[in-house]
Amino acid sequence: MIRGNDPILLTPGPLTTSLTTKQAMLRDWGSWDASFNRITLSICKDLVEVVGGGADYACVPLQGSGTFAVEAAIGNVVPRDGKVLVPNNGAYCARIVKICRYLGRAVVDLPVPEDQPVTGATIAAALDADPGITHVAQVHCETGAGVLNDLTGVAQVCQARGKGLIVDAMSSFAALPIDVASTPFDALVAASGKCLEGVPGMGFVILRKAVLEGCAGNSHSLAMDLHDQYSYMQKTTQWRFTPPTHVVAALRAAIDQFHQEGGQPARLARYTENCRALIDGMRSLGFRTYLPDAVQAPIIVTFHAPADPAYVFKAFYEATRERGYILYPGKLTQVETFRVGCIGAIDANEMRNVVTAVAQTLTALGLHADLARRRLAA
Amino acid sequence: MIRGNDPILLTPGPLTTSLTTKQAMLRDWGSWDASFNRITLSICKDLVEVVGGGADYACVPLQGSGTFAVEAAIGNVVPRDGKVLVPNNGAYCARIVKICRYLGRAVVDLPVPEDQPVTGATIAAALDADPGITHVAQVHCETGAGVLNDLTGVAQVCQARGKGLIVDAMSSFAALPIDVASTPFDALVAASGKCLEGVPGMGFVILRKAVLEGCAGNSHSLAMDLHDQYSYMQKTTQWRFTPPTHVVAALRAAIDQFHQEGGQPARLARYTENCRALIDGMRSLGFRTYLPDAVQAPIIVTFHAPADPAYVFKAFYEATRERGYILYPGKLTQVETFRVGCIGAIDANEMRNVVTAVAQTLTALGLHADLARRRLAA
Repeated sequence: MIRGNDPILLTPGPLTTSLTTKQAMLRDWGSWDASFNRITLSICKDLVEVVGGGADYACVPLQGSGTFAVEAAIGNVVPRDGKVLVPNNGAYCARIVKICRYLGRAVVDLPVPEDQPVTGATIAAALDADPGITHVAQVHCETGAGVLNDLTGVAQVCQARGKGLIVDAMSSFAALPIDVASTPFDALVAASGKCLEGVPGMGFVILRKAVLEGCAGNSHSLAMDLHDQYSYMQKTTQWRFTPPTHVVAALRAAIDQFHQEGGQPARLARYTENCRALIDGMRSLGFRTYLPDAVQAPIIVTFHAPADPAYVFKAFYEATRERGYILYPGKLTQVETFRVGCIGAIDANEMRNVVTAVAQTLTALGLHADLARRRLAA
Repeated sequence: MIRGNDPILLTPGPLTTSLTTKQAMLRDWGSWDASFNRITLSICKDLVEVVGGGADYACVPLQGSGTFAVEAAIGNVVPRDGKVLVPNNGAYCARIVKICRYLGRAVVDLPVPEDQPVTGATIAAALDADPGITHVAQVHCETGAGVLNDLTGVAQVCQARGKGLIVDAMSSFAALPIDVASTPFDALVAASGKCLEGVPGMGFVILRKAVLEGCAGNSHSLAMDLHDQYSYMQKTTQWRFTPPTHVVAALRAAIDQFHQEGGQPARLARYTENCRALIDGMRSLGFRTYLPDAVQAPIIVTFHAPADPAYVFKAFYEATRERGYILYPGKLTQVETFRVGCIGAIDANEMRNVVTAVAQTLTALGLHADLARRRLAA
């Protein structure tokens, strides 16, 4: 039997990676061997450069998913008597609140509407209301809805008030511009399998060295002790515990391709074009985006589900999958939505093709008429 | 330039994997997709079967290295007021002691000589001395020196005394026999990149379901909350946080090959033959094993370093590496040693070849005469 191509992943990681990236996993590496440790060190150096971190910042890689690295950042950077402000406009913010509670760190869970960005003013008001806050944990692009928060505004307020800032840049790193000169932070977290277009299996935290050096003894966990991981790597060039060697090798290949493409500006341009092609096409089918364009990050787009009572996400997903595209479920609590990612080793052609696949799915499931009605009513 | 084959890893994980296993990573998988989740569920089912766990045990996979899963097992299974006995005959035992201290679990660090196995009697005496102990954390094969502890003896004492047992079976699982019928445990930890011959990047914990159900609220960490991971998987078939999809796919391929080979008995037979060929060959060169054969597990062998004052591990390592074999440094504190693994997708031919490579290395580094002298003196 001839198998066709695998479906394209329109999900916010794992995502579709290039064949070159995957082929980097066809070799085995010894975790003690110098050739492997050179890869780790070169990755860390390159990741610091993505945010212009220079000599003041260091990158500490960590095994596991991005959430592991987020938890590690909170557990290491926030002292046990610290207090964390989490401006909460989505599922990934809510996860940070949960992490703080697990770790016994005091947390202020500040509700922000899911379709509105967090700004410097949001943070300033919250700090005014509670001077006991020591750190802000800010999600850059909240992929729950896909909203882009004003990270630079938030960072500048934190700096002016002398508060620590931990950034969850999971879905924005390497695609959206982040520069420590305009956006100073204590720690910034991302992972291999997002906009760097590697495969999932490791996260990393970029820390201001002055902060990192003060983290000793904070961690609630041996495995997640970033200070210990960093100190050991400085001494030995090795990871403390078995690294995901193939994932690391794939990330090296992915970063090489990132550089070849033209770095963050080129990646942003491609994703922006992807996002534009997707939204234009879906609107032409009668779909509405959940977010206004002004706050829509070009990472993942939330669409309102078809209003037809016959709509069931699972059937819609399966039928689109048969046509070669894997969508992502919505993550909003109040509104029925689905999401389509714009990231990965894909271009605007794929986005036009997914629109075609969705159009065919609507026809196949008999949902087209309903959308047409809504378009007339709109 | 023609590149030769990659060197063979004679390390206790990451190890040399088969090309079939690596090729399983040439596809991308959606973590929400049913086709991927079926892989996860089939892996968990197969891993429980390796220890004959039947319906009473469940397997919970966890992102990260094996140490992450060991920490998760301690943090989930041992209640916050529990007390853990760690019979300590090597580096991996010492790591568990460290984990307990990070997690604020009371711990009894029981020194056992590095060249002697822990037995049921060791545990019985320690439990007699401290009735406050609630759990025993036992490393099965301590790869620090390579010693095989008497896991069945330990498990039977724990069962008779009503103590919980957490097994670190990182380097023994799938190679050495473990059956819950003769070796009951509360939790057993291993990882993808060891004797299952997958690639590194995920661990797993096999738990007695009755124990797992009582773990709610114990975990010090969101990312490592095995109870939460299990509950979520039961409900959704999905991992809570992004799984290392390619590592999981490779593990599925590796387990298929494990079954094709004949399962644990066949794997043990191959590793035993590897170990025999290695030890025989190295002894013929004049090397001495650190352990007596009776307690030597066929996983990794510790050899005394050449007594020659000109010996430097790094040079020895590099010269053997040039000949195609990656050795592993020693991990003993009192004696200068190096280690050679017997595991991975390799057979006795490779072991005979590494002996040849070591012999050539000795000649190249001018260390041969010294060994010959020691042989005459012995």
